[in-house]
Amino acid sequence: MIEKQNRTISLQELARLAEGRVVGNGEVMLNGVASAHDAGAGQITFLSGAKNYASYLELLKNSKAAAVIAPDDAPELNLPSLRLKNPYYGLVKALEFFFPLEKPGYSIHPAAFVSENAEVAPSASVGPHAVVEDGAVIEAGAVICAQAYVGRGARVGKNTFLHPGVRILADCVVGNNCIIHANAVIGSDGFGFTLHQGRQLKVPQVGNVIIEDDVEIGACVTVDRGALVSTVIGSGTKIDNMVHIAHNVQIGKNCVIVAQVGISGSTILEDEVTLAGQVGTAGHVRVGKGTTVAARGVVTSDVEPGSFVSGFPLKPHNEERRIMASLRKLPDLIKKVRELEKMLEGNDNK
Amino acid sequence: MIEKQNRTISLQELARLAEGRVVGNGEVMLNGVASAHDAGAGQITFLSGAKNYASYLELLKNSKAAAVIAPDDAPELNLPSLRLKNPYYGLVKALEFFFPLEKPGYSIHPAAFVSENAEVAPSASVGPHAVVEDGAVIEAGAVICAQAYVGRGARVGKNTFLHPGVRILADCVVGNNCIIHANAVIGSDGFGFTLHQGRQLKVPQVGNVIIEDDVEIGACVTVDRGALVSTVIGSGTKIDNMVHIAHNVQIGKNCVIVAQVGISGSTILEDEVTLAGQVGTAGHVRVGKGTTVAARGVVTSDVEPGSFVSGFPLKPHNEERRIMASLRKLPDLIKKVRELEKMLEGNDNK
Amino acid sequence: MIEKQNRTISLQELARLAEGRVVGNGEVMLNGVASAHDAGAGQITFLSGAKNYASYLELLKNSKAAAVIAPDDAPELNLPSLRLKNPYYGLVKALEFFFPLEKPGYSIHPAAFVSENAEVAPSASVGPHAVVEDGAVIEAGAVICAQAYVGRGARVGKNTFLHPGVRILADCVVGNNCIIHANAVIGSDGFGFTLHQGRQLKVPQVGNVIIEDDVEIGACVTVDRGALVSTVIGSGTKIDNMVHIAHNVQIGKNCVIVAQVGISGSTILEDEVTLAGQVGTAGHVRVGKGTTVAARGVVTSDVEPGSFVSGFPLKPHNEERRIMASLRKLPDLIKKVRELEKMLEGNDNK
Repeated sequence: MIEKQNRTISLQELARLAEGRVVGNGEVMLNGVASAHDAGAGQITFLSGAKNYASYLELLKNSKAAAVIAPDDAPELNLPSLRLKNPYYGLVKALEFFFPLEKPGYSIHPAAFVSENAEVAPSASVGPHAVVEDGAVIEAGAVICAQAYVGRGARVGKNTFLHPGVRILADCVVGNNCIIHANAVIGSDGFGFTLHQGRQLKVPQVGNVIIEDDVEIGACVTVDRGALVSTVIGSGTKIDNMVHIAHNVQIGKNCVIVAQVGISGSTILEDEVTLAGQVGTAGHVRVGKGTTVAARGVVTSDVEPGSFVSGFPLKPHNEERRIMASLRKLPDLIKKVRELEKMLEGNDNK
Repeated sequence: MIEKQNRTISLQELARLAEGRVVGNGEVMLNGVASAHDAGAGQITFLSGAKNYASYLELLKNSKAAAVIAPDDAPELNLPSLRLKNPYYGLVKALEFFFPLEKPGYSIHPAAFVSENAEVAPSASVGPHAVVEDGAVIEAGAVICAQAYVGRGARVGKNTFLHPGVRILADCVVGNNCIIHANAVIGSDGFGFTLHQGRQLKVPQVGNVIIEDDVEIGACVTVDRGALVSTVIGSGTKIDNMVHIAHNVQIGKNCVIVAQVGISGSTILEDEVTLAGQVGTAGHVRVGKGTTVAARGVVTSDVEPGSFVSGFPLKPHNEERRIMASLRKLPDLIKKVRELEKMLEGNDNK
Repeated sequence: MIEKQNRTISLQELARLAEGRVVGNGEVMLNGVASAHDAGAGQITFLSGAKNYASYLELLKNSKAAAVIAPDDAPELNLPSLRLKNPYYGLVKALEFFFPLEKPGYSIHPAAFVSENAEVAPSASVGPHAVVEDGAVIEAGAVICAQAYVGRGARVGKNTFLHPGVRILADCVVGNNCIIHANAVIGSDGFGFTLHQGRQLKVPQVGNVIIEDDVEIGACVTVDRGALVSTVIGSGTKIDNMVHIAHNVQIGKNCVIVAQVGISGSTILEDEVTLAGQVGTAGHVRVGKGTTVAARGVVTSDVEPGSFVSGFPLKPHNEERRIMASLRKLPDLIKKVRELEKMLEGNDNK
């Protein structure tokens, strides 16, 4: 595992960073974060809004942890605690303190290839065997890891981090403070063909991809460039691994898209949409603001804002659940109807 | 977005390239292509066989476009138009004119690694940090982009384009005029194991992959090599992103395979098969010529040529739709049958 | 295809390697393996426990093969045969003989980048444009192919093979005798966020991935690092292409995970679990030892050891099949119930 950093902080000081309150001894010194089970001396552990406090409290009693991050309304605990309405926020602050992001110690690595017509800010880093092509721009503080690729005329914003093997293809734009995970592809051609004399003829894809600020994109994600316009991913949106986003898709701000989702061409997601794992969308549909599509759902037509939907074809989630439950009764239902039929025939023959 | 190229063409001349006819002023000069909404002065826009001409005509009236590509039977338009039976063909010709494919300005980039036992045609290009191994052959006009890989004994045909991070593994063969998108993998081992003394023992996969001419393969696609024979992708077939093709699969000519499809081992697709998004196939099935499998369908057994099928297990698409519609009535149906039962019990008790 | 190696072996000798018995002439010399259809002179072919011996025997009669590997209880064959209870084991031994794994002829390729603070065993290989970062350890006999990546503090075990473009990210550990296929990503960040002031705030992912011995991982697979702890893949487990494994997942020994499966966070698979193609799991579920989940199933809650389950929500496979069969009767059932209703109304009116 990640080696423990040599940093220490008092519980009181951590509480200040996390804007939480301390219950118990705030002077206790902390040197790391771990699960209750794994925590060693000096480490702080974490109690989420668990359904089952009882078993967790048992774990805590046997833990070597020095303190615990807990929900504001958690019961009395046997360790000093940092209390917050959202304990995950405390966890984030602790992790950020103990595991600060380290930047590479080089600017442009000697084994990188950077075109003389590219522009790399002095505070940016370009790793070994990375490639930055003609006309590309790498802004201040950006990190282009080993073996990543920034194509002709592409732009990578401030403090954005491209993991190894990421491909930002020609003319695509990535905003500030984005994280793109290994082997993701931004700007592959959209899947556009027209049948001509019995053959599928390629429609050149001449748009690009625009990724706004604070976006995170998972490993092996593919985002296709627009056919004529831009495929857009709005600021603050978070995308899990192996999601496919087709050409011309417009994704709003602060959306959450879980692994293995497929979004068909020209789909529009308004802000704050959540697509759970393995969801698909038909092309040219609009999903309203704040909607959640449950796992495996298929968006087959427009969805009103604020919906909670699932299934294929898509239905209100409650209805889908009712149908799923009913399905288990279907084989018996068929028998029952056959019996009723016979009874009724009997009645008729009376 | 892609910067506009400095090329101009008259509408009349474009009509000649596209074998279409001009309605209105053919002398108008064009300098680019854009959507009706985005088009600036001198640009040509595009009207597909839209269901809704009315709203589009409204857009056109407010467009700055100089001309429009339209279906042969479109109504009278307020701009000079290029008319074709298949307006997409006109769009392709316009895009090809304004966005000509540019070849890299180098033959073998100094930061590439090309084995001295590989054969690279003088007109081929190999980009920075690309690798071409022993015995590989790169034919005339082929482009091996930055960081792409061509393995031992592999062959890349004339004018084929491998995007960054593509892996063509040992002994695989890619035909002429193919396009393979970033981070796709051609020739990974098939998934073959046999249980031996309680452990899964690997069956060495010693076949290869043969990709015929004019094939396009999406980003992060994986095509496994055959166990003993070749996995084959027929000429003219187009494959979208993140499609998985297992060992020994035989795909015919001019198939269309949409994103996130999974094709199990030894599946045969005859010519002109379409698999829509997220389709799966069981292994060892044959899908007849010209068949379409709708999104999310699972091919569980052989399919007759010319079928339109969907669902899991696979059914005629119309039947699947009828079942899907029926499902929403199932919870009520269960109640209804319970009522009938009670009524009938009542009758019997009379 | 792979060129035939210049090795020969007698059927008798191959039988000794495979611990099988010879029927017919054991002196026949073999120079390769091929399907019955493709086999040339001197090649051995393969007969699995086929349902349909008749058609296969026909093929064999017209084959140029010199011998055949067959199940112990196969009928009399027209060629000398190597008989085994598990004929696939004989195939493995033949393939291993005729296609021995070749190691690259270099230790650290001059076009690789290896940090001076990394440790590479003299018998290990690092290919062109591969990167091995500070503190990484590459053990004896390991092969880091071209363009693969081993991050800071990561470890690659003895004789493990990383195909081109594989990314082993910082602090991850890969055991001995593993095979990781092209463009797979080990150690991408888990998908962890907490809503804070209307924005998704990243929870730093500070665990790692531990892959035990004898694991095979397919092309474009992604395995996320744990949030605080390790994501673990147990020894002997085999994973097909494009599988997504989320943070904190614990996979047991000798599991088989087929292509395009998605495993959500903190899922536990006990030993010898099989997940067929395109299966998904909800988070925080436990799948008992020896369970098989059929293709496309979604694991929605804990599963008892030894189960055979499918569907969404998950059910015993037999029940799911019964339901699937019943579904085709649903549209007619609705009609029938309507008729019964009318009849019954008629009866009531009598």
